[in-house]
Amino acid sequence: MKNNPNFSGVIAPVLTPFDEDGVPDADRFVEHAEWLLADGCTALAPFGTTSEGNSLGIDERMDLLDFMVEDGIDAGKLMPGTGSCALADAVTLTRHAVDLGCGGVLMLPPFYYKQPSEEGLYRFFSEVIEQVGDDDLKLYLYHIPPVAQVGIPLGLIGRLLKQYPDTVVGLKDSSGDWSNSKAILEAYGPDFEVFPGSETFLLDGLRAGGVGCISATANVAAGRIREVFDNWQTPNADKLQAGISALRKAIQAYPMIPVLKALIAHYRDDADWANMRPPFLNLPDAEAAKAVRELAETQGFKIKIAIPA
Amino acid sequence: MKNNPNFSGVIAPVLTPFDEDGVPDADRFVEHAEWLLADGCTALAPFGTTSEGNSLGIDERMDLLDFMVEDGIDAGKLMPGTGSCALADAVTLTRHAVDLGCGGVLMLPPFYYKQPSEEGLYRFFSEVIEQVGDDDLKLYLYHIPPVAQVGIPLGLIGRLLKQYPDTVVGLKDSSGDWSNSKAILEAYGPDFEVFPGSETFLLDGLRAGGVGCISATANVAAGRIREVFDNWQTPNADKLQAGISALRKAIQAYPMIPVLKALIAHYRDDADWANMRPPFLNLPDAEAAKAVRELAETQGFKIKIAIPA
Repeated sequence: MKNNPNFSGVIAPVLTPFDEDGVPDADRFVEHAEWLLADGCTALAPFGTTSEGNSLGIDERMDLLDFMVEDGIDAGKLMPGTGSCALADAVTLTRHAVDLGCGGVLMLPPFYYKQPSEEGLYRFFSEVIEQVGDDDLKLYLYHIPPVAQVGIPLGLIGRLLKQYPDTVVGLKDSSGDWSNSKAILEAYGPDFEVFPGSETFLLDGLRAGGVGCISATANVAAGRIREVFDNWQTPNADKLQAGISALRKAIQAYPMIPVLKALIAHYRDDADWANMRPPFLNLPDAEAAKAVRELAETQGFKIKIAIPA
Repeated sequence: MKNNPNFSGVIAPVLTPFDEDGVPDADRFVEHAEWLLADGCTALAPFGTTSEGNSLGIDERMDLLDFMVEDGIDAGKLMPGTGSCALADAVTLTRHAVDLGCGGVLMLPPFYYKQPSEEGLYRFFSEVIEQVGDDDLKLYLYHIPPVAQVGIPLGLIGRLLKQYPDTVVGLKDSSGDWSNSKAILEAYGPDFEVFPGSETFLLDGLRAGGVGCISATANVAAGRIREVFDNWQTPNADKLQAGISALRKAIQAYPMIPVLKALIAHYRDDADWANMRPPFLNLPDAEAAKAVRELAETQGFKIKIAIPA
């Protein structure tokens, strides 16, 4: 693992709660974010895929981020998603995050037009970096081809690292393909901060030079994932990893984002927490009850919501 | 064909010019729009896929639309693209277009999250319609699965038509699959205004109850496409259709959006017109010269730019 990485450990793409009118609920959002940091997250990535980030408007994203920082969350621990298929909006969001003092940003490639050339992707990221024009910008590339369809090819990383070595500092790999994370680490690690997009690959990642994981399920199980991170060089590591891999597998038997919200709703006893924004739908009540029961029985899974004072 | 359709004929998804700094060029944009109306377009669809519309920021789209209307273009002839993967931004753009008096809007489904349910898509469009809350809204659904990946299923159209018969008035079908347009017309036409996304299906569409086409190549060949629309019930129709189909085929041998801009740049003798925004790249000069030459030789293709007084 890199010495003194900019980010490392267990990072949650923070779920975005919506009130009964479908409006992002800033109070529940910050409350959840603070609990995540208390529960074991080392940092937070609001407006990721799990956050329904691409269902949020540009202003909604900036307002929620402002609210987090105003409420006292350390901006240095925030790595908001600032990608957009529109160059202008990606610049606006990124500049806003840097101005707030965010420790980094997580940026999707432009994802509307399919099969862009590597040169076209290079120019997109290069334009964002040049237009933001701030040495404080620390950019993490976001590779998630199963959703965005457009990915971050290996050669693009190399070109960006060569041109912007102090700005392009890492990548989240949500390909679900460990061999891709491994290839990136072999080519550019361990100085380049690689985060697998699932805790399933946390221990493999750390052993190969990665720095942690950015994972949806950290929204409900940060503590257990953090245990692996804290003990990865101990004899107990493989056993701990097997535990979080099994939990992940059990959770992802359900639609991921709706089930995470349903679990929070259950353990907070707050039905509105389950609200999804279209095009997503809430997990049906019966499915939610089944998930709570099944995860408790087979995985000993239970959330202890303890809000920090 | 429907009597008194809201829109009909030949509609161009207006190309968006960028200056040497990559900024949308409002003057060139409006000049091009006015020329398109003079060249045979019956209406205009700014911020479509061909317009690099999803590479434009929310504010850029609204500013360009304001500029068009301020410059005297009849808002009733405008059907701007107001889709976004974010519900809030789709509402903002749609409300703005309605407030300006636009005759309609062309709306993509939310396209980031893949394989949404039909119910989820229904709720998305329903939310936009309810939140805009204006009887003047005339919404055209935009089905373009080759790019957006997320499409507009047949059943969704029926549900929206049932609930919002005065608002959801038509659809652009850019599937490239005539059998899909035909199925939509058989199920909901001819009152529902169906526009194939290519002039290749213009005559077939009109004969089956469609109202015209919304096509990329109308940016350079509106006059010839309009001839088919004006003469579709004459004995000459098939011959005219064969001509525009051949021209379309010759043009789409090149990357579509870059070659259209390169052709405009050539015939306007204005090199900056060829500028593409990342992730797209300009057509290389040699390719552009080849396209100009080949289209002139094989299709007698030439643009006569006559700016209306």
